[in-house]
Amino acid sequence: MRIVVLAGGIGGARFLRGLKLAAPDADITVIGNTGDDIHLFGLKVCPDLDTVMYTLGGGINEEQGWGRTGESFTVKEELAAYGVGPEWFGLGDRDFATHIVRTQMLAAGFPLSAVTEALCERWKPGVRLLPMSDDRVETHVAVDIDGERKAVHFQEYWVKLRASVDAQAVVPVGAEQAKPAPGVLEAIAAADVILFPPSNPVVSVGTILSVPGIREAIAEAGVPVVGLSPIVGDAPVRGMADKVLAAVGVESSAAAVAEHYGSGLLDGWLVDTVDAGVVERVESAGIRCRAVPLMMTDPEVGTAAADMARAALQLAEEVRTA
Amino acid sequence: MRIVVLAGGIGGARFLRGLKLAAPDADITVIGNTGDDIHLFGLKVCPDLDTVMYTLGGGINEEQGWGRTGESFTVKEELAAYGVGPEWFGLGDRDFATHIVRTQMLAAGFPLSAVTEALCERWKPGVRLLPMSDDRVETHVAVDIDGERKAVHFQEYWVKLRASVDAQAVVPVGAEQAKPAPGVLEAIAAADVILFPPSNPVVSVGTILSVPGIREAIAEAGVPVVGLSPIVGDAPVRGMADKVLAAVGVESSAAAVAEHYGSGLLDGWLVDTVDAGVVERVESAGIRCRAVPLMMTDPEVGTAAADMARAALQLAEEVRTA
Repeated sequence: MRIVVLAGGIGGARFLRGLKLAAPDADITVIGNTGDDIHLFGLKVCPDLDTVMYTLGGGINEEQGWGRTGESFTVKEELAAYGVGPEWFGLGDRDFATHIVRTQMLAAGFPLSAVTEALCERWKPGVRLLPMSDDRVETHVAVDIDGERKAVHFQEYWVKLRASVDAQAVVPVGAEQAKPAPGVLEAIAAADVILFPPSNPVVSVGTILSVPGIREAIAEAGVPVVGLSPIVGDAPVRGMADKVLAAVGVESSAAAVAEHYGSGLLDGWLVDTVDAGVVERVESAGIRCRAVPLMMTDPEVGTAAADMARAALQLAEEVRTA
Repeated sequence: MRIVVLAGGIGGARFLRGLKLAAPDADITVIGNTGDDIHLFGLKVCPDLDTVMYTLGGGINEEQGWGRTGESFTVKEELAAYGVGPEWFGLGDRDFATHIVRTQMLAAGFPLSAVTEALCERWKPGVRLLPMSDDRVETHVAVDIDGERKAVHFQEYWVKLRASVDAQAVVPVGAEQAKPAPGVLEAIAAADVILFPPSNPVVSVGTILSVPGIREAIAEAGVPVVGLSPIVGDAPVRGMADKVLAAVGVESSAAAVAEHYGSGLLDGWLVDTVDAGVVERVESAGIRCRAVPLMMTDPEVGTAAADMARAALQLAEEVRTA
């Protein structure tokens, strides 16, 4: 079975760990969000790709969900001693090595997809990890600060400001000119099932879908497309998804996110059992819906995520045979 | 008193620490060798500039004479886990931060001299540290390996091969096209005395002198130029200076190094007391010579180096009033 997954960071990575448990023999291709990418200290940092790679490769800091386990911060402290920031982005020494290798390879002319493949030779994530695009796409968030509208990098909005101000707009800068990375459209065309993990529908899955060709390829793949709600009981499971949903005029609810994707894209949708009441609303929008537990309560073991993945694959099967 | 010092790495840095003790009120400009510079992991590393900066700024690993004190090697280990080398060059985590800042500033368009000044804002070495040139000069060493002549980067010869094979030639690649960094010729022209510390006469002081204009400026400055022998009792005090001296046809002796610089450049020369027998030979070459203790036996305190610096300044005074 060939599965394609559109993944953001922590939520996507933990779901993928469950999916590998649920479908150990599946051929899984992950299309990773790169709109969160940022240049720090002259180095190219790809937070979502790295979170997937570290999580599936056994190098993740389980507690925080991102960054490396057993991390130290010597380089960052030294940079601060030189007065060089930003200090609000937590780059550890182990993590730095990844960005140094990536930056060196990019400078040598390799596209991000080739660099990601090279990094994965070490981590052996057990999936094929592709960046959504080799072209630069950078998610910017428009905010009003002191009465002035300004655009900040997504990481500045998310990590530095902690989404403490409302997002007025979310713009994947460069997306219109971006091309899907080599292998992305081919993987979608060859997929038996396409999954949207409980990643952020705006700045993770939404950014991937903003690369011309990807949304169309998914809609035309002719295979079940099943998503999992990142909203449980009207609140994001993690992160501040409600903030960026509001920016695109979508209410923070499991049903509204499904409607936001729409039946033209989505065939099936899983909501948490606490949201069982919205199943009918989602189905009336033409999207098959089931309520199952959606809290990844044991991220390290992945049993809960595996159950979620099984439910998603089962719903896909229902869609296929309907 | 305005003193200009042409410095390589460890020997130059330790001598400078003594010079600051000997002449606390002097205005010291250091012209640092950059022929040892190397790009590692996509980062610009300037070993000699950093050794001077760390030594005078209190950050040096005293025992080894280079690199940072209290160093860890997480980044390097991680790079090795990615299969990315070289492993033979000992870059620690603290040191990495310096190279990251430098590389980022260079990429932003700042010349190396401006970058060095910025780094020194943190270290406050108490001297004005100038790279010999903002242009790229890279010392290559010609060696015969398995019957084949090849050119290796100086660091590869010195650190990886540990000078275990004979150097057939030493070439400061790019020197002919290089210009002295801003301030270098001005400092020389304004100097009251110019000192050659016991740095390597070929790959440290010699490389600095290979930048067109610097040798001429020193010869024409009309002020005493005094050097200290890096060879004591026919053996280099540290490093493998004999190997690169042989490559330029100079015997490894205190007298031969003075003659190599020549009376057109050098006015005074200090040899160690064990080499008192060569004083006459050096003076017959037109270079005023004195024998004093030249072993920096207490590098951390710098008393021995301070005595050496005092002897050098005293010899300069003799030259001036002769």
